[in-house]
Amino acid sequence: MPNTVALVKTEYFTFTDKFMLESGKSLGPVTLAYETYGRLDQKKENAILITHALSGDAHAAGYHEGDDEPGWWESMIGPGKAFDTDKYFVVCSNILGGCKGSTGPSSINPETGKPYGLDFPVITIADMVNAQRHLIDHLGIEQLLCVAGGSMGGMQVLQWAASYPERVKSAIPIATALKHSPQQIAFDEVVRQAIMADPDWRGGDYYDFGQPERGLAVSRMIGHITFMSEQSMEEKFSRKLRNGKYSYDFAADFEVENYLRYRGDKFVKRFDANSYLYITKAMDYFDLTQIPHDRKIETRFLVISFKSDWLYPSYQSQEIVRHLKRRWVDTTYCELPSTYGHDAFLMDVDAQQELVTHFLDKTYNGYSVVESYYAL
Amino acid sequence: MPNTVALVKTEYFTFTDKFMLESGKSLGPVTLAYETYGRLDQKKENAILITHALSGDAHAAGYHEGDDEPGWWESMIGPGKAFDTDKYFVVCSNILGGCKGSTGPSSINPETGKPYGLDFPVITIADMVNAQRHLIDHLGIEQLLCVAGGSMGGMQVLQWAASYPERVKSAIPIATALKHSPQQIAFDEVVRQAIMADPDWRGGDYYDFGQPERGLAVSRMIGHITFMSEQSMEEKFSRKLRNGKYSYDFAADFEVENYLRYRGDKFVKRFDANSYLYITKAMDYFDLTQIPHDRKIETRFLVISFKSDWLYPSYQSQEIVRHLKRRWVDTTYCELPSTYGHDAFLMDVDAQQELVTHFLDKTYNGYSVVESYYAL
Repeated sequence: MPNTVALVKTEYFTFTDKFMLESGKSLGPVTLAYETYGRLDQKKENAILITHALSGDAHAAGYHEGDDEPGWWESMIGPGKAFDTDKYFVVCSNILGGCKGSTGPSSINPETGKPYGLDFPVITIADMVNAQRHLIDHLGIEQLLCVAGGSMGGMQVLQWAASYPERVKSAIPIATALKHSPQQIAFDEVVRQAIMADPDWRGGDYYDFGQPERGLAVSRMIGHITFMSEQSMEEKFSRKLRNGKYSYDFAADFEVENYLRYRGDKFVKRFDANSYLYITKAMDYFDLTQIPHDRKIETRFLVISFKSDWLYPSYQSQEIVRHLKRRWVDTTYCELPSTYGHDAFLMDVDAQQELVTHFLDKTYNGYSVVESYYAL
Repeated sequence: MPNTVALVKTEYFTFTDKFMLESGKSLGPVTLAYETYGRLDQKKENAILITHALSGDAHAAGYHEGDDEPGWWESMIGPGKAFDTDKYFVVCSNILGGCKGSTGPSSINPETGKPYGLDFPVITIADMVNAQRHLIDHLGIEQLLCVAGGSMGGMQVLQWAASYPERVKSAIPIATALKHSPQQIAFDEVVRQAIMADPDWRGGDYYDFGQPERGLAVSRMIGHITFMSEQSMEEKFSRKLRNGKYSYDFAADFEVENYLRYRGDKFVKRFDANSYLYITKAMDYFDLTQIPHDRKIETRFLVISFKSDWLYPSYQSQEIVRHLKRRWVDTTYCELPSTYGHDAFLMDVDAQQELVTHFLDKTYNGYSVVESYYAL
């Protein structure tokens, strides 16, 4: 398999000290699931942390034994790719509050011997980042060459630069925001209500019975509408009918209905409903416009948004850029013309590859290979 | 009470003949609830039919005995208003498939003596319009001066002109479309799935037990997000907190969450869940781009859209205009600058008032009062 990190394994790091949360509550022990690709250089200056979106996990690239599907950002991570594993040491961890190996509401509460459920404390993006910092310490990395991620991953990127500016040489927040708008909060709230409306949710204490599948599926359907642009839906589905004619009942007449049902059904098999509640809440609470920025930020920024993304519209990335520029932070911004909507950071990566490649080159080597080419 | 039609009563018209539906099935008897305001002139040339949106009803203007709230388009209908009841005879009927007095899934099925539930046949916008045509016949109106409505009301307007062009002198479709895009179908499908995911829905046979309240509330919350623009949400709610600080639980922290929950809870008390399923299906099936237009259309059109409406974006109204212009239909189009989103046709009516007033003047008198003023 060329251009892939090939076979990878998820590893686990547990820190047992009491982990203080922004809410004032504490949690412990905390385990983070993580994967690494490439090699840390001797000076430990080539480490890149990849942060994932709402339903992502530590498995960002390569293949697990026996799996046909690669990691979620395989298009961007691997030998010769933007996050070039021949040059860089790439780390990705499942967030605190997640359900893919890191401590979250479906983990066992050591005090009861049962899954936390709603006894899990509400966490924030800053809590996720603090937990990642423990992992980065554990890996012996003093300063990250870069932290990069899209959507909620981008929030973590921004939080890293806000919480630990001296530990982040560069940052790439993609398709994200300094804070959720009321419309983004509204979508998250409906998603939560759809889950909690399902009697199978049982106040979050469903682990002995099975997931609130119907509610979670509806939630994910709402999500998928917001991830796509109107244009990409038109190109992919238009008004195509599954059986060439109207059923005159409540079957899935249109391809787009079938797609959403399929996506909803698939999601309930792979994602914990309570994690969806906690993670969306963390996103809604996130607000970097409110904290004082009294520390100098030497981190370099590459901010990327997508023209057709209506869930995290470009104006929100431009707000990030304005905030950074006001603090004299070295910032490059690019709005890419993809038609894929919010999904673009995962789907439509050619232009993104190019931007990231040169930005990392310059951060790592002090110049871009392209610049050096033109200098010949 | 000035500028209102004041006390009004809903009336009922039942036609007992077998009513043939587009699906090939039939239905009967069919009752339509309707209201009228103003007086039909001797020549019966001043009748205007108002068609309502998804959750509307026959009560478009004035007050019912004992009620504090006026009809849903009180701002547009009344003495001296756009639909001037001193001049015009205004009719509004609850649609076929509705739950406000017209025959729908919650009506008694004469074959079983119980509510239809899912035995109610799937209906289309054309079926709704055909049923209205029976009512218009009953009222002795040969030609309507105008048919006007927003959103799904606009679909009925377009269908009237397509089905009965000789009976419609003018038409005002507002914030509507010739057909739903896949994104619009997607939102409707999620709305339906949210209802059907609620075990209290019981396959549509819930009338002995009560509504599927949780599913229907989630559906309506989704609706309200799509009815508002991002800007109007920002102006109305921004990130305002209900209690000044984060709760760190799953309470409604933000005003916008509280608003959506309130809207959802209120809706389940006034609207039948099955009607929501049937009506959204009718909207998704609607597609006037597919039928041949071999009949000459002498109907005059005023097409209105709103700049901030992302549920029925202006490009869809422009598509209507293009279709009409290609058939040499007399068409005026205006995109209004409201920030209210799709709700604008109900909320932000000043510019709409003016457009409609002059358009109706010209249709009724052959000239506009404004034109005659300038001609002095």
